[in-house]
Amino acid sequence: MKKSLIVALMLLMVFDIAAQNEVFTGVVINPDNSVTFRYRNPKAVKVEVSGEFMDGSAELTERDGVWTYTTAPLASELYFYSLTVDGQPILDLNYSVVKDIPRWMNYFIIGGEKGDLYSVQDVPHGSVTSRWYESSTLQMRRRMNIYTPPGYENGKRKYPVLYLLHGNACDENSWLDLGRAAQILDNLIAAGKAEPMIVVMTNGNPAQQAAPAYFGDTYTNANTRPGIASFTDSFKEVISFIDGNYRTITRKDGRAIAGFSMGGGHAFTISKDYPGTFDYVGLFSAAGSNISDPAQKQKLLDMKKNGYKLYYIGCGTDDFLYRSVLNYNRQLDDIDFRYYYRETPGGHTWGPWRIYLSEMVQMLFRK
Amino acid sequence: MKKSLIVALMLLMVFDIAAQNEVFTGVVINPDNSVTFRYRNPKAVKVEVSGEFMDGSAELTERDGVWTYTTAPLASELYFYSLTVDGQPILDLNYSVVKDIPRWMNYFIIGGEKGDLYSVQDVPHGSVTSRWYESSTLQMRRRMNIYTPPGYENGKRKYPVLYLLHGNACDENSWLDLGRAAQILDNLIAAGKAEPMIVVMTNGNPAQQAAPAYFGDTYTNANTRPGIASFTDSFKEVISFIDGNYRTITRKDGRAIAGFSMGGGHAFTISKDYPGTFDYVGLFSAAGSNISDPAQKQKLLDMKKNGYKLYYIGCGTDDFLYRSVLNYNRQLDDIDFRYYYRETPGGHTWGPWRIYLSEMVQMLFRK
Repeated sequence: MKKSLIVALMLLMVFDIAAQNEVFTGVVINPDNSVTFRYRNPKAVKVEVSGEFMDGSAELTERDGVWTYTTAPLASELYFYSLTVDGQPILDLNYSVVKDIPRWMNYFIIGGEKGDLYSVQDVPHGSVTSRWYESSTLQMRRRMNIYTPPGYENGKRKYPVLYLLHGNACDENSWLDLGRAAQILDNLIAAGKAEPMIVVMTNGNPAQQAAPAYFGDTYTNANTRPGIASFTDSFKEVISFIDGNYRTITRKDGRAIAGFSMGGGHAFTISKDYPGTFDYVGLFSAAGSNISDPAQKQKLLDMKKNGYKLYYIGCGTDDFLYRSVLNYNRQLDDIDFRYYYRETPGGHTWGPWRIYLSEMVQMLFRK
Repeated sequence: MKKSLIVALMLLMVFDIAAQNEVFTGVVINPDNSVTFRYRNPKAVKVEVSGEFMDGSAELTERDGVWTYTTAPLASELYFYSLTVDGQPILDLNYSVVKDIPRWMNYFIIGGEKGDLYSVQDVPHGSVTSRWYESSTLQMRRRMNIYTPPGYENGKRKYPVLYLLHGNACDENSWLDLGRAAQILDNLIAAGKAEPMIVVMTNGNPAQQAAPAYFGDTYTNANTRPGIASFTDSFKEVISFIDGNYRTITRKDGRAIAGFSMGGGHAFTISKDYPGTFDYVGLFSAAGSNISDPAQKQKLLDMKKNGYKLYYIGCGTDDFLYRSVLNYNRQLDDIDFRYYYRETPGGHTWGPWRIYLSEMVQMLFRK
């Protein structure tokens, strides 16, 4: 009797909390893949929604204090959205929240080809470990996230490694939270479309030990640290840590490196400055890829001579780095350096980067 | 030249995003440990702040469109807070966000004794792995989080295990996000105040594979699943998975189990229903601990006879389960069952549960 009373009390408590939250009634994905945003606020004058699924924003209409707006049917994708109430952006407290650059965002996923690939499916799942290493060059303990494929813990085989780098103002959590790297790898490995591999997601900001959110801190720019080694210089410690602590293939045909934006620049720099280390390179909307300097050009010529298997370049046609990427492609053409170029619609955002990751991992470590 | 232009463009982009966010100007922790909330919204009529550091709420005052309020100096702690604008609760998009029960919350930490214990310090850090196991009793793949202490990966020694369970409407992430379990363990192990141990944080909702947030889902109540085994019945699979996959001490003097609320009830049930398995038990604001049933009382008498090292009971004096906990203590007194009772101020909230965890881990696995 006592026990049922307690359970009843607990349920009441939870329902009470749920009731408080009815002010934010959240997102409904309709059977036709249109999405209805619902927001309860009798006092608001103007409520708008914006997101990656529309140009500009749309006004919600109010009835009995509940504001609603329904989109057209949406293509399969993970979409950010933002509600604005009387000019103020707000977060939907009840729906999925994730951090993008300095600020928190809401998102939802529309199922189908891409949305399913980015979602947790009922397939074997790899493990994701947050682990710290000591960096003597950067003079700090630093955090990284490591995906090990299903079966890693219970076998003896050695695995290839993809080093997956993030952009400016992001951190070691970004490829997991926004890039859906664990879901993409789980799903492609389960489908036999990607080789089982280890994925190492470092923090590429040399002035940062770990993601600010991990500390409970707010965002600060931390991608330079004057007077200390650069992240790319320190990267040998990362490779050495991974090869020393995981069952890895330690030849270049067992190593890939890829990144977006600043992380694409890091992948560009590391792949040429660590000769003979990587057979696979991915530059997604890369910042700073340029070999107009003869010494840099020579490094690419050396890489061509040493041999490599894949040099993947991806960019969206609306990306602010689009011209810069095309210019780099021309520089590579000039020295007859073979690369795979993938152009998509879209700008400097996660939509294209998730596509490039999904495509590139299917081209890695194939016999 | 080109490269500096790109860097400049990227910085502009980041600053632009930062500028957009000035509408939420966030939390400032002042040198005297008072906290100033700042919120920019020229159109708002009434802005209030509430949180664990005050009774009720306080109104912010506006000047030039920026609303501010400064608290009295606060004691060291991790505090939730909530801003309400014209009657609507909002999230501060720039500050630390974490999920509590069904909704997202902001928080900040005031340093000092407790706040420092709950913060990331410059000490060796354990690893935290999100890992999936197959539950045949619950008929699903399920996710758990496993803390391994600093040095685990590079040694051969066997470690004791603390199984750490969550309450109703929480999940396998709660002890990490809100309970600060990894920080508490890192800091107490570094100080020599706790033995190095593995901490296993399961999902105690038998109808859930993993935290809803991991799926991008919203909260649903999932703590019962009629017709399928209960979480406590399925727990043998958890122990077997951990003992099969980690270097553990597989005797009862190497195992502890603790939880809060529903998880306290689970710890109560599992510790008595798995005789000879745990030498250490922690019931924090436990729901459903009751041995008025003679068969249940007998299990505690058997446990007393078999021997155990610690039966820790903690409760806040404002907890809605306070009387129930005191009633259970009297039941234990009646059978002369030794326990350690810790009473604190506070209600059915994370403040007391973090204290109980911090204290209990210092009492575990001591020679």
